[in-house]
Order: sequence, then C-alpha cells, then structure tokens
Amino acid sequence: MTYCVAIATDDGLVFCSDSRTNAGPDVLSSYSKMHVYNLDKDRMVVVLSAGNLATTQAVISHLDNDLELEDGDSLHSCKKMTDVAKYVARVSREQQEQAKDSTGNAEINTSATFIVGGQIRGCDPAIYLIYSAGNYISVSDETSYLQIGESKYGKPILDRILGPGTGLEDAARCALVSMDSTIAANATVGPPIEVLVYENDTFESDHYIKLAAEDSYLLSLRRSWSEVIQSAFRELPQFEWEKRSAPVLQAITD
Amino acid sequence: MTYCVAIATDDGLVFCSDSRTNAGPDVLSSYSKMHVYNLDKDRMVVVLSAGNLATTQAVISHLDNDLELEDGDSLHSCKKMTDVAKYVARVSREQQEQAKDSTGNAEINTSATFIVGGQIRGCDPAIYLIYSAGNYISVSDETSYLQIGESKYGKPILDRILGPGTGLEDAARCALVSMDSTIAANATVGPPIEVLVYENDTFESDHYIKLAAEDSYLLSLRRSWSEVIQSAFRELPQFEWEKRSAPVLQAITD
Repeated sequence: MTYCVAIATDDGLVFCSDSRTNAGPDVLSSYSKMHVYNLDKDRMVVVLSAGNLATTQAVISHLDNDLELEDGDSLHSCKKMTDVAKYVARVSREQQEQAKDSTGNAEINTSATFIVGGQIRGCDPAIYLIYSAGNYISVSDETSYLQIGESKYGKPILDRILGPGTGLEDAARCALVSMDSTIAANATVGPPIEVLVYENDTFESDHYIKLAAEDSYLLSLRRSWSEVIQSAFRELPQFEWEKRSAPVLQAITD
Repeated sequence: MTYCVAIATDDGLVFCSDSRTNAGPDVLSSYSKMHVYNLDKDRMVVVLSAGNLATTQAVISHLDNDLELEDGDSLHSCKKMTDVAKYVARVSREQQEQAKDSTGNAEINTSATFIVGGQIRGCDPAIYLIYSAGNYISVSDETSYLQIGESKYGKPILDRILGPGTGLEDAARCALVSMDSTIAANATVGPPIEVLVYENDTFESDHYIKLAAEDSYLLSLRRSWSEVIQSAFRELPQFEWEKRSAPVLQAITD
C-alpha cells in the first residue's frame, strides 16, 4: 500500500509520501515514491506514485528515458503543468497496458496512480491527481489537497486544518500528522516519510526532509500532537447532564 | 453506509451511531441503528447494526419476537454478555442465509454486522463486534473500542484520545468527533446521531441523546473542535529551516 498527499496553498506546494511497498504482509520493502525533477532554473516537477511497483517503476523509468531524447514529449519539453499531467497520464496508461499484457492471465492488479505537481516559469504552480484510467483532476478553492493510496485515515485532519491561506510549513506539518495517522492505522504504509516544500516562483527547493521511523523530529511531532490534542479535548463543550451535576459547591455556599 | 462505534472505559460503555441508509446516492433515508433493550433492572443491552437494511431489520425483529416467547434463547434469557453475542450472531447468520436464499441470484449484498454491548447483573459490562460470518471479538487493554461500517475516517481520533482511563463523557465526545469526521468525509453516513452513555453497574441509562444535523450541541462541538485543533496546531515543533530564519531580531539587538 501507499499514502501520498500534495497540498496547494497561496504560498506554494507541499508533497509528502511514505516508502513502504508490500506484496503480502510478509513481503515488505522500502522504495521512495517521491521523484523530484529540478531540471533547470525554470521548472520544478515532483511526481508521487502509488500502485503496482513494477508499473510505477516502469513509468518513472520511461519519464527518465524521455529526458535523454532530443525529440518528443518529456518533462523538459512540456510547456505547462497541464501538459505534464497529460504526458504522465499517457505514459502511465501505456505502461499499465504493457504490464497487463505481459502478466497475461495472472490476475495481478497492475494499475497505478500518480500525483504530479510543480511549476514551470511563466505559469502558476499546480498539482494534479492522475487516475489509473489516465484522466486527471486538480485542486479547487474548496479542496486544496490531493491524495493517492490509503487516503481515508489521513483525510479528516486535512479537512479541518487546510485552507488556501494555510502557511506552507503548517501545511507540511498537517501532511505529516495525516501521514502519521495513516501509518498508525495501516501496517502497509510506513516510513521513511519524505516531505518537500516548494515556495512559489523559486523553481527549486532545499526544504526537503526524509524522516526514518525513529527520526527525532517525527517522534517530537507525534508526541506534541498527542499532547496538544489531549489537552484540546478538555476544552470541548459539556453535555447537559454534566452541567446539571456541576454546581453542587455553589448550591452549598449560596 | 453506516458508522457505529462502541467504547469500553473503566467507568462504563459508550455507544454512538449514525442514521443514514442508502441504496444508491439518490435513495437516502433515515433509520435508527441503535436498539436499546433495558428489559428489567438487571440487564441493559444495546445493539448497533450495519449492513443490508432488510437483513438488520429482520434480525432486530427476530430479537424482539424472541422476547415474547416463553421458551428458547432471547436477550432476556442470556446469562452473560458472551451468551448475548453468541445468540445475536446465530440470529444474524440465520437471517443472512434466509435473505440470500430469498434474493436468489440478484447479486445483492445481504450481509450485516453488529455491535452488542451492555451488562447483566453479576457479570462485568462488555462489548462485542459480531462479523457477518457470525464470529465475534471483544476489546482489549490496548484497543478499547469497536467499529462497524465506514470505520477508517474516524479511527485516528479514537487511537489518539482513548485509553482505559478515559472519562465516560470524554469517550462520548471522542465518539462524536469521530462520527463528525466520518459524516464530513462520506455522504452516506449522516445524522441524526445517537449517543448512549452507560455507567457500570447502573443497569439503565438516561444519558441518551439524539442529535439532528443542526443540533446546537453538535454545531458547538464541531466549532469548538475546529478551533482547538487549529490552535493546537500552532504548538507543533518547527522544521529546522524555520528555526534558522527565526532569530533575525536577536542578531540585530545582540
């Protein structure tokens, strides 16, 4: 399984991915699902991948090979981020079809989904979710994030915290809490966790971290979140019957 | 769809259920999924239901009918809560088989799952999750809650807040936040929300509430939770690069 999330804020983009892959509960391994293409000073493209590992590797390998060709589509030749989405969608569909053909009747799920995001100079930054069928969607004013893989456990915190005005680092912490909740709930999603924060119009990022299971920042974030959420919980409104039982002391002193 | 959760704490039990049923996105209706049997001063049993509505109605109807018979198993004749679990599991399996037979080859999913919980005098309180196959599980020191239906969205908050020592009302608020997150994420889970809080060794409960969509307590809980979680979020540890950019003022004044 996999969990990846990308967030678009007014200030930039956040990408976050886990690294666990599995083919059954006892065939676990670690592969990065974040592929960063900072090809020149005019474009920054990040691809997050989920699904069949052989298929996603074939897609990424195809993207890499296309970069070495002088002609034809590549992450370098795309003029806009929508072109990038369209191009990655086409490569994904082709590779999924090849994988289906080559595995014959083995009834293996060879599908893959991707998030692509980034910015090309002259255009606004953007993120897209590319479905396995090859169609794709972007974000909106109401929904500022996209998820692939095991998306349910980590969704509520995104809905409660994120908005277009959320600060970039807060969005990154929100992605990490969302990831941490997912890792706690699904054994096939796991560290290292990769986070990349992209600030609009910079066309590069040195705000990238890779957090192992026992990384001190990750442990500190997890501990802090548990503490603040426990204490926040005590501020929630009481039920009617709790209020009824409260003013005993007052009744005595009145 | 459905979402129900039951929680066991040191002090008692909490039951929470939504009321939305659907057969397709445009066939929505409301049915209570919380069935309370407070038969006499020696036993309190709550049944939460999920799955095919015809099947769950048939099961509940069967439980009700059995109560009117003088002989045979019923919620009244069971000696322990494990007997209740075993009995409801048997009725569920029978009704699922009948539903499967009567719907023939219509390829309708007629399965159902249940949570049963409560207390019978002389025994400890208990909750059980009865799978559609008829087997069942209870809670443990590490896992103090059971869920049926759409369980993923609401799981992280349960994991972060609940422990054996959690107060009963806090557990009920936790169930409500978990329910609220699920309702926000899945359109086929919806209000009214029912909550019942059972205090150990009381064999009754007047701490039952039914919250409509616009209920003032529900709206106030949702608003409070959003506020406290947003403010809690600002207390999370900073990334390394934020720390680097922070002490500008200090450098000037030193």
